[in-house]
Amino acid sequence: MQKKKMTNPLHRRKKSRAKDKIGKAPGTVTYLGDREKTQSTVHTIEYDDESVAEDFTNDIDAILVHNDSKSTSWIDVVGINDEAYIENLGKRFGLNSLLLEDAVNTLQRPKIDEYDNHIFGVFKMLYINDAEELVSEHMAMVLLENTVLVFQELKEDVFEGVRTRIRTKHGRIRTRGADYLFFALLDAIIDNYFTVLEHINHKIEVLEEQVYENPKPEVAQKIQELKKEVLKVRRWIFPVKELVSRLIDTESPLIKKDTKLFLRDVLDHSVEINETLQIYREMSMSLMEMYMSNMSNKMNEVMKVLTIMASIFIPLTFIAGIYGMNFDHMPELHWEHGYLYVWGIMIFLLLFMLIYFRKKGWL
Amino acid sequence: MQKKKMTNPLHRRKKSRAKDKIGKAPGTVTYLGDREKTQSTVHTIEYDDESVAEDFTNDIDAILVHNDSKSTSWIDVVGINDEAYIENLGKRFGLNSLLLEDAVNTLQRPKIDEYDNHIFGVFKMLYINDAEELVSEHMAMVLLENTVLVFQELKEDVFEGVRTRIRTKHGRIRTRGADYLFFALLDAIIDNYFTVLEHINHKIEVLEEQVYENPKPEVAQKIQELKKEVLKVRRWIFPVKELVSRLIDTESPLIKKDTKLFLRDVLDHSVEINETLQIYREMSMSLMEMYMSNMSNKMNEVMKVLTIMASIFIPLTFIAGIYGMNFDHMPELHWEHGYLYVWGIMIFLLLFMLIYFRKKGWL
Amino acid sequence: MQKKKMTNPLHRRKKSRAKDKIGKAPGTVTYLGDREKTQSTVHTIEYDDESVAEDFTNDIDAILVHNDSKSTSWIDVVGINDEAYIENLGKRFGLNSLLLEDAVNTLQRPKIDEYDNHIFGVFKMLYINDAEELVSEHMAMVLLENTVLVFQELKEDVFEGVRTRIRTKHGRIRTRGADYLFFALLDAIIDNYFTVLEHINHKIEVLEEQVYENPKPEVAQKIQELKKEVLKVRRWIFPVKELVSRLIDTESPLIKKDTKLFLRDVLDHSVEINETLQIYREMSMSLMEMYMSNMSNKMNEVMKVLTIMASIFIPLTFIAGIYGMNFDHMPELHWEHGYLYVWGIMIFLLLFMLIYFRKKGWL
Amino acid sequence: MQKKKMTNPLHRRKKSRAKDKIGKAPGTVTYLGDREKTQSTVHTIEYDDESVAEDFTNDIDAILVHNDSKSTSWIDVVGINDEAYIENLGKRFGLNSLLLEDAVNTLQRPKIDEYDNHIFGVFKMLYINDAEELVSEHMAMVLLENTVLVFQELKEDVFEGVRTRIRTKHGRIRTRGADYLFFALLDAIIDNYFTVLEHINHKIEVLEEQVYENPKPEVAQKIQELKKEVLKVRRWIFPVKELVSRLIDTESPLIKKDTKLFLRDVLDHSVEINETLQIYREMSMSLMEMYMSNMSNKMNEVMKVLTIMASIFIPLTFIAGIYGMNFDHMPELHWEHGYLYVWGIMIFLLLFMLIYFRKKGWL
Amino acid sequence: MQKKKMTNPLHRRKKSRAKDKIGKAPGTVTYLGDREKTQSTVHTIEYDDESVAEDFTNDIDAILVHNDSKSTSWIDVVGINDEAYIENLGKRFGLNSLLLEDAVNTLQRPKIDEYDNHIFGVFKMLYINDAEELVSEHMAMVLLENTVLVFQELKEDVFEGVRTRIRTKHGRIRTRGADYLFFALLDAIIDNYFTVLEHINHKIEVLEEQVYENPKPEVAQKIQELKKEVLKVRRWIFPVKELVSRLIDTESPLIKKDTKLFLRDVLDHSVEINETLQIYREMSMSLMEMYMSNMSNKMNEVMKVLTIMASIFIPLTFIAGIYGMNFDHMPELHWEHGYLYVWGIMIFLLLFMLIYFRKKGWL
Repeated sequence: MQKKKMTNPLHRRKKSRAKDKIGKAPGTVTYLGDREKTQSTVHTIEYDDESVAEDFTNDIDAILVHNDSKSTSWIDVVGINDEAYIENLGKRFGLNSLLLEDAVNTLQRPKIDEYDNHIFGVFKMLYINDAEELVSEHMAMVLLENTVLVFQELKEDVFEGVRTRIRTKHGRIRTRGADYLFFALLDAIIDNYFTVLEHINHKIEVLEEQVYENPKPEVAQKIQELKKEVLKVRRWIFPVKELVSRLIDTESPLIKKDTKLFLRDVLDHSVEINETLQIYREMSMSLMEMYMSNMSNKMNEVMKVLTIMASIFIPLTFIAGIYGMNFDHMPELHWEHGYLYVWGIMIFLLLFMLIYFRKKGWL
Repeated sequence: MQKKKMTNPLHRRKKSRAKDKIGKAPGTVTYLGDREKTQSTVHTIEYDDESVAEDFTNDIDAILVHNDSKSTSWIDVVGINDEAYIENLGKRFGLNSLLLEDAVNTLQRPKIDEYDNHIFGVFKMLYINDAEELVSEHMAMVLLENTVLVFQELKEDVFEGVRTRIRTKHGRIRTRGADYLFFALLDAIIDNYFTVLEHINHKIEVLEEQVYENPKPEVAQKIQELKKEVLKVRRWIFPVKELVSRLIDTESPLIKKDTKLFLRDVLDHSVEINETLQIYREMSMSLMEMYMSNMSNKMNEVMKVLTIMASIFIPLTFIAGIYGMNFDHMPELHWEHGYLYVWGIMIFLLLFMLIYFRKKGWL
Repeated sequence: MQKKKMTNPLHRRKKSRAKDKIGKAPGTVTYLGDREKTQSTVHTIEYDDESVAEDFTNDIDAILVHNDSKSTSWIDVVGINDEAYIENLGKRFGLNSLLLEDAVNTLQRPKIDEYDNHIFGVFKMLYINDAEELVSEHMAMVLLENTVLVFQELKEDVFEGVRTRIRTKHGRIRTRGADYLFFALLDAIIDNYFTVLEHINHKIEVLEEQVYENPKPEVAQKIQELKKEVLKVRRWIFPVKELVSRLIDTESPLIKKDTKLFLRDVLDHSVEINETLQIYREMSMSLMEMYMSNMSNKMNEVMKVLTIMASIFIPLTFIAGIYGMNFDHMPELHWEHGYLYVWGIMIFLLLFMLIYFRKKGWL
Repeated sequence: MQKKKMTNPLHRRKKSRAKDKIGKAPGTVTYLGDREKTQSTVHTIEYDDESVAEDFTNDIDAILVHNDSKSTSWIDVVGINDEAYIENLGKRFGLNSLLLEDAVNTLQRPKIDEYDNHIFGVFKMLYINDAEELVSEHMAMVLLENTVLVFQELKEDVFEGVRTRIRTKHGRIRTRGADYLFFALLDAIIDNYFTVLEHINHKIEVLEEQVYENPKPEVAQKIQELKKEVLKVRRWIFPVKELVSRLIDTESPLIKKDTKLFLRDVLDHSVEINETLQIYREMSMSLMEMYMSNMSNKMNEVMKVLTIMASIFIPLTFIAGIYGMNFDHMPELHWEHGYLYVWGIMIFLLLFMLIYFRKKGWL
Repeated sequence: MQKKKMTNPLHRRKKSRAKDKIGKAPGTVTYLGDREKTQSTVHTIEYDDESVAEDFTNDIDAILVHNDSKSTSWIDVVGINDEAYIENLGKRFGLNSLLLEDAVNTLQRPKIDEYDNHIFGVFKMLYINDAEELVSEHMAMVLLENTVLVFQELKEDVFEGVRTRIRTKHGRIRTRGADYLFFALLDAIIDNYFTVLEHINHKIEVLEEQVYENPKPEVAQKIQELKKEVLKVRRWIFPVKELVSRLIDTESPLIKKDTKLFLRDVLDHSVEINETLQIYREMSMSLMEMYMSNMSNKMNEVMKVLTIMASIFIPLTFIAGIYGMNFDHMPELHWEHGYLYVWGIMIFLLLFMLIYFRKKGWL
């Protein structure tokens, strides 16, 4: 079997965590991911029913202006490994350091924390990139009164649809406040989980075909990798349902009642995603079961061929052996048709065995 | 093994969802199913204790008249891929766009949402069609004060019995209001789940027989397909129990107290269906286990035949080989009865082996 | 392998249900079992501390007299497929049609419903009949103020002990009211579940012995049938615990406080039965595991015999083959003791192999 | 395979229960165990801070004196199959017959019932006797105001340490009341569960070694027996946690607040015991898995030997067979070094096969 | 297979417990671990915002001075097998003997007990020592008003980072009270669990590679050992989540509101650790599954080689056997090209078999 190194998706991360985090005081803002170090860029969109204004700036004072305005602002911080900048920015927005630590901690599991005047959420964007690989991108968002502050790890994201709706005034997004924007971003994240499910489903289908047609050892290995991928995705997706449900029950004035109606829709989707993941888990276990059953079938096939060949020819060879003996007195050897008789017996035996095996259903 | 492409029941759907839904604003009414595009037709039945009137019309104004009347009306919209029409109709009934989105979203899992003046439910009709296939048809219903508004995907449905009872004044349906009609439709849906269970049960029985008699690889494949079908059906049926239970506990004045008594009956059935599905799941897992055990048995059979044949004839062939050697000095070859003696030894060995194998229970 | 048709215990029932129930209005009193159609007979026992009177009558008026009396009455309706009679009788006792539907619906799972002036329960009598088969008999009981109304499917039942105690004034039954009778009947039903457990346990023991001694394919089949039987029995028994627990917590004045003390005992038994069933489930899974492990052992046995025979005689045959060659120049053939030397080598090889296999632990 | 009858630990009991209990009125005091019938003996210890007095008597009046005294009394009834005596004694202490029924019912699962002026508990003493067997002894205790009344099945028990502490005034037992004694007895029972765990753990270790070294079929059988033993022990131990927890939450004045502090310690132990049992369950399942994997390994070993022997010698035998043919014209036979050449070819083939198998890792 | 004694991690402990604990009065302070007996040493650090003072002393009076001071004190007792000293020290701090028993009982599972004026916690420090072994070290801590009293089994611990932060005034630790110190120690313990996870993860990765490349029996054994290690670690880690959660909900004035904010962070970590352990458990089960599937593959490989060799050469040997017979009349023997014809037939058969096996995909 060909060697294949399977990289454990949880490994590298823990390693860095163990190294980088232990001994540090809680609340130390530390980026733990492995993306290349870049400067953060900030993309602000300020909009109300009538106008939209977009801006790219790193200047914290300029950014804070948006927060103070009456219109809704979406302040999108792209790149979270410039820890000092993030800490500065956060402090100016009045965010505490534990929150900022979670915002850049790429290992943080999904969470929602409510504070007196803001709501903080950590989620994972999962999407399939152009190379057909599953990307897991850390993101955090803070809902303030008129502003949503977003921290995202990479330039790529799943929010293009939301931006378009803001720019083109499509749907109700322009007429509603920051809480609706918060919902819209969450909705975009969760809608993309469906593409991830589709991706997993496609893998299951491909493996299913391979299991039935050509169950090589590599297929078993791929099934195990699939199981791990499902485990990993579930790890990021599973808590979301509980979090959204808590968001719906919140008494915070930051989330208005009719936005909760939309959140209930998001909750429905989370439930559905969790159920589907559960189904995929059972399917991947069935796949392995099917693989093992097909292996058994192939073994049976092999054994049948051996048994048939051996059972037919070993007795015939024995008969030939008999008349290859060199005894002085072996009358059959001197019969005129002895040789023909032996052939007769052999052919009879052959037919007998063939009929027997056909009856057994082995031929 | 013969190639068989197993179509994953969850695949095509997610694909369309992923494509069609992502980036759209929430509340966009989008049909996601794959049934052919047709115009919606609306079948109205207005009835009270004394009279019944049926009508087929597409005219929204004409339909609204039924809603305003004091008698009970059942407005049945057949065909839900004419999205614009559905949206118009819905808005005239005062339904919000999130609700309408769910009504035509064939991927929506079963749900019940309570609003101030209507109750909205999404369910799946599951039934066996004439071609003995399991059909899953999306449907949604809205309970208004005197009206039940139904959206169904196909002309076929499971409500023929309810229609007959209304027309023939059988049972108490004509004397009771819209909430009883709502219950009667739900009851009809759930009663049909029993035929689906029967269908699954029949498949289990057929597979059981095949596993015991002729455990071919195809049987294992069919068992896995059955397991998937059970997973899929459970997905649609499982949430119903919780939903009905919430309906019973509702404080909405739309559902009267004595209708709740009937709903409790529906709840009992949902519980029973879920339990039966669970039993089927365990049965299908046992089937696979039995299949594997039968495979092992067959392997044992094959190995026994091989072992018996080889163990008997290989030693005999060896003896024949001995006396086929060409040594100058082999006294046995020149004995008068040497050949007979050898036959004697061989027959003795044969009998010895046969007795040994019979003792082992292999013959 | 010998063909054996396994009848699925859940099949026939669902079929009739699907046929008989669909489309009917809820509350239609329909017997769904498959016992032969007979007229109902009613056995009444009216008793107080001082006297007992028994009666067999079908006359509803005569029966109602017992209900109005101050003494405790047990009205036992035997045979529930005379639907019209049951409906009449029930209505005279003031029972609603949904209740009556459940009373004769042999597919109804165990339930307890509380009404204002009566408590209704459905249970399954499970017992082993004289032919050593497990019988599942549907029964329903209604606790009224001074009366317990029982509906049972067959003449046979598990209540003989209760009748004897009433007739012989054994225990406290004669001095207590209808709620104690209700408890005593329930207690009798649940006590019989222990005989069913014993029956299952006996089957497990027999199969255990067969698995260890003679693991034929039929044994695997029987284990699977046992698993199904446990599933089926659990289906009827499992809900009882919850029901009794609700009965203890009831606020209905129909059940007096000291009767609840006895019900707590029944609850203890239900808990124990459920736990034992759970243990039997795990045991039957272990049985299958053991069967598979014994199959593997037997396969190993077979393979060892084959390997030993082939490994010993194939090399020896090869040696014999060497000296059966017809080369002109083969010096060994002309040695005086060549033949003896060959035998020496062969015997040495034989001993060597035997020692090797003994070392491996295969002999 | 050698026959071994496995006695199902649950069998004999249920049988007697089914026979002995059915039809009897509830509250009938019936001993259901299988220990030899003996007269009960009563051992009383009355103590306070200053003095201890022990007594052996059967006289109920003499026993009752202890109950009325102000000092703490431990009345220990040894032997519970003298049903009439138990019933008399119990009635004099004001205990109801349902309680007494449970006290002698050796099948009763652990329970705690609170009454107005006493608390009743049933537990199982589990301990390893001198013959290294696991003994399960039924016991019941009643906590009265100044007295603990104990019913135990056998003379052997796990309370020797408590007696010593009372006699030697070790620890605080002498200065505290009956509730502390009740706790101390419970504590002694639960401390002994740890020796049972140790016993099971030792069995697991022994089996583990056997599985790795010599996985005979008997080992699989012993693993299954171990699994049953764990199931059985869990059955007796598992409910204890819940019971102790209820005892801590009780509002009964019989248990003082500082005794509850000690009970919390007992609760901790119960939780730990349950967790450990769960771990043992998983370990015994792993053992079976390991056994199966070792069986497969051995099969692989056997097959490799067969394959190597057959693959080497069958082709060589074929070559020898070629030159054993009797064709008139076979030039090789007449070459001067033909015989040597054949040996050369054979040795080359042999080496080739050996190298091939070594490469495969089979040698 | 090579013998390997697997030491059961739970064994030795229970044994000592069973021996050492049974019969002793509750509250007896008994060290149950197996570390060498040493005298306890006490390391005190007293600090406030301005100054830090460290001290090593065994003198209880000197230690108590720290407790009475207004600054925050960390009193770290290293070595807990000097039971008398611990008991003395504890009593002077006003701790009851049950608490002290748990503090030195190395078998005590993690717990938190709240008292009126102190909070007591038992945890396990898990860390990887220099020999790359997993060490489990018992520790207990008591939170008093201005003091945290720590009992730890060994000199090594996981608190070096906390000490450094105190000494260097890094982070907020110096400005906050004893509850923050309590949190910081707990945080350090839990942060180290991540290194343990990393250690387990590394083992999984190594085993994964071995399973794919060289699935020897030893690998299965190592997988089982890994499963046990995960079980063991889970046993110590699993309860922590619940304990921290209770600490957050406490109403004790000893823990201030803003420290709870930090505890919530610790809670997040515990949840994450538990989830990861669960994932590792599933991974180790998948590993075993993969091992079994690779064993099957190897068996298939072996069987194929045997089948191919036997199926090709047994028929050819038979043909050679035919023409090795000694019949007087065998015309083929005397044909001029008979020998060549036989070779022709043999080569044809060989090619035929090779093509057949290639078609089957066995070559």
